[in-house]
Amino acid sequence: MDATLSGDVVRVGANARERYYDSRGYGRPLDGGALALAPVEAAHLLYRGDLNSVRDEAGAAMDFRTFLASAAVSETDFLVYKDLRDRGFYLSPAREGWTDVVDAATDGTAASGGLDFVVYPRGSGPWDDAVAHRVRVASEREPVAASALGDVTLAVVDEESEITYLGTEHLAPEGSSRVDLPTGVPGALLSDRVFLWDPPARLYESGFFGQRLDDQRGETLQLSLLEAAHLARRGAIAVEDGGGERADDSSAGADAVVDRGRAVEGDRFDRRLRVYERLREAGLVPKTGFKFGADFRTYAHVESVDDLGHSELLVRVLDAGHEFSPRDLALDVRLAHGVRKEMVFALVDGVDDGAGDAIEWLSVGRLTP
Amino acid sequence: MDATLSGDVVRVGANARERYYDSRGYGRPLDGGALALAPVEAAHLLYRGDLNSVRDEAGAAMDFRTFLASAAVSETDFLVYKDLRDRGFYLSPAREGWTDVVDAATDGTAASGGLDFVVYPRGSGPWDDAVAHRVRVASEREPVAASALGDVTLAVVDEESEITYLGTEHLAPEGSSRVDLPTGVPGALLSDRVFLWDPPARLYESGFFGQRLDDQRGETLQLSLLEAAHLARRGAIAVEDGGGERADDSSAGADAVVDRGRAVEGDRFDRRLRVYERLREAGLVPKTGFKFGADFRTYAHVESVDDLGHSELLVRVLDAGHEFSPRDLALDVRLAHGVRKEMVFALVDGVDDGAGDAIEWLSVGRLTP
Repeated sequence: MDATLSGDVVRVGANARERYYDSRGYGRPLDGGALALAPVEAAHLLYRGDLNSVRDEAGAAMDFRTFLASAAVSETDFLVYKDLRDRGFYLSPAREGWTDVVDAATDGTAASGGLDFVVYPRGSGPWDDAVAHRVRVASEREPVAASALGDVTLAVVDEESEITYLGTEHLAPEGSSRVDLPTGVPGALLSDRVFLWDPPARLYESGFFGQRLDDQRGETLQLSLLEAAHLARRGAIAVEDGGGERADDSSAGADAVVDRGRAVEGDRFDRRLRVYERLREAGLVPKTGFKFGADFRTYAHVESVDDLGHSELLVRVLDAGHEFSPRDLALDVRLAHGVRKEMVFALVDGVDDGAGDAIEWLSVGRLTP
Repeated sequence: MDATLSGDVVRVGANARERYYDSRGYGRPLDGGALALAPVEAAHLLYRGDLNSVRDEAGAAMDFRTFLASAAVSETDFLVYKDLRDRGFYLSPAREGWTDVVDAATDGTAASGGLDFVVYPRGSGPWDDAVAHRVRVASEREPVAASALGDVTLAVVDEESEITYLGTEHLAPEGSSRVDLPTGVPGALLSDRVFLWDPPARLYESGFFGQRLDDQRGETLQLSLLEAAHLARRGAIAVEDGGGERADDSSAGADAVVDRGRAVEGDRFDRRLRVYERLREAGLVPKTGFKFGADFRTYAHVESVDDLGHSELLVRVLDAGHEFSPRDLALDVRLAHGVRKEMVFALVDGVDDGAGDAIEWLSVGRLTP
């Protein structure tokens, strides 16, 4: 069967359609029974021995090794293509204009380099219109923009050429945890937290704000600076600084707490506070995720701390412009999976315009296609 | 009992030595039965009700709450001090000149702000000369310089005021994995790895270099760029670029591989390569740690890949000037613990002077004092 590389397409002659497309879902049909193959498809046919060689434009024949080593095809794309074929899928390159189903599935994202393959459900192919996965290929060593994820399966090829699939999707966290806040409870601003010496019990018991100083005797509640800023902004607590100066009004108290937070963390404190507040507004209780290496763990349905279930989400706060190292992504996802929680990244836009749309929630989990 | 804050010491009058020091290890004896307490010790005595108040220099009496909210004592230090006392330890502030044992244990590091407490073994106290832990206190939110760790227990106070203890120590990885390298095996440089089409079997089977392309048929070996650079520098492989041009000599081939690595990772590739080479020289086999979110997992004793045990270390490569976020440290340590491996950070100095001393190995693990 005569196959010729021309630009970024390998053209295969008459009868190719029947042999490669109709029966096994390779390529895109051309007139007269001919077929256009993406180079990665041609590489797979060469690898399997279903195609003997591909001629370059000068007419020289390339076998599998020569073709794979040429600039026509990336070996990471080939490795993922082969793996998905081995798993029983048909798939097409995510190229604009390749087929109608590819155009519908890529929705302009392929043009921006975001997608590599459209994978059909097992038993389906390019002649159907169902899509199982939209796949982006990345090397272990290659940064991936957070903004490019969501409704995409990231196929990471590691340095041993093993492939890890990470499903990514957007979500909107929602819960039913609510508590009536008190007014003006006095609090003392220490170096890294706020102490409430005599708080109303419901702040902790129903709202799960803070942590008791001591189980044996303590009514004293220790609030993190995030919790304190949130409560002070709502007038629930009135914060004095360490010297005993009560702030004139609650907003001045909140500002003192925020200043303390920024002194160590800078902008990061503001991003974390925005995520904290959005989660509380959505009815979730965020508590530190330190033990899991995350910013927060969250509880969607807190009625009483005596009857607390497991937390459901681990949340890591990132700037919206963040680029993931696939290695760090694998770390977060693996740890979350090990403790049966969902890993969620809160991507915070630089500007807080109060419109409520400046945080994007990205859930990432390992999947087996 | 009369206690007065003066500078950074609380002086307690006659008989204090017997009551606080001799029987419970607080403070540093002064002449005539008096005692010098560090503010954190005084705070703990106030908290327990063993001291009623501390006078400031103006003579005003401070109770526990006022004293803790004052600038004299940090609440994170207090929380760690209290926790270690609750666990049955006596401990002293890591202050220069406090006692001989403190001076011996801090060894100049306290002066640089590196240490906060010297903890004695259970049953011992400041009158003995044994030390169980040298403790540094950090808030969850506070960056910690990698260079300050090693032979230190980091006590991280999280936003819920829970304390996680991380033991840190230096080590020198050593193993017995060795393989006779071949000479000049041809390799093809692709975009993100090097393929050896017909390698000698021992490269993979004894040396655990690379990964086979396909278990069913393949003699083809895929090398990571790190493995390829290491082997090319030693003349074991001769790398051609994708166009089929054989490099004139092995060092040119190695340079081409390194250039390819830098194109995506920049300096990071050089740091990772130095760590890779040092581990190989020490008789360990480094393979990608991607699935564990690390740079490498290592095998200390590889004789044959058919008889491979579990990897022992997870290695993350960092610049020597790195500052840890305690949260990220907790993440790495927890994941490593969950898979029963030791977490090791390779701190790479900017300059490779060939003297073999430019990489520091730091092991970090959770501990319960």
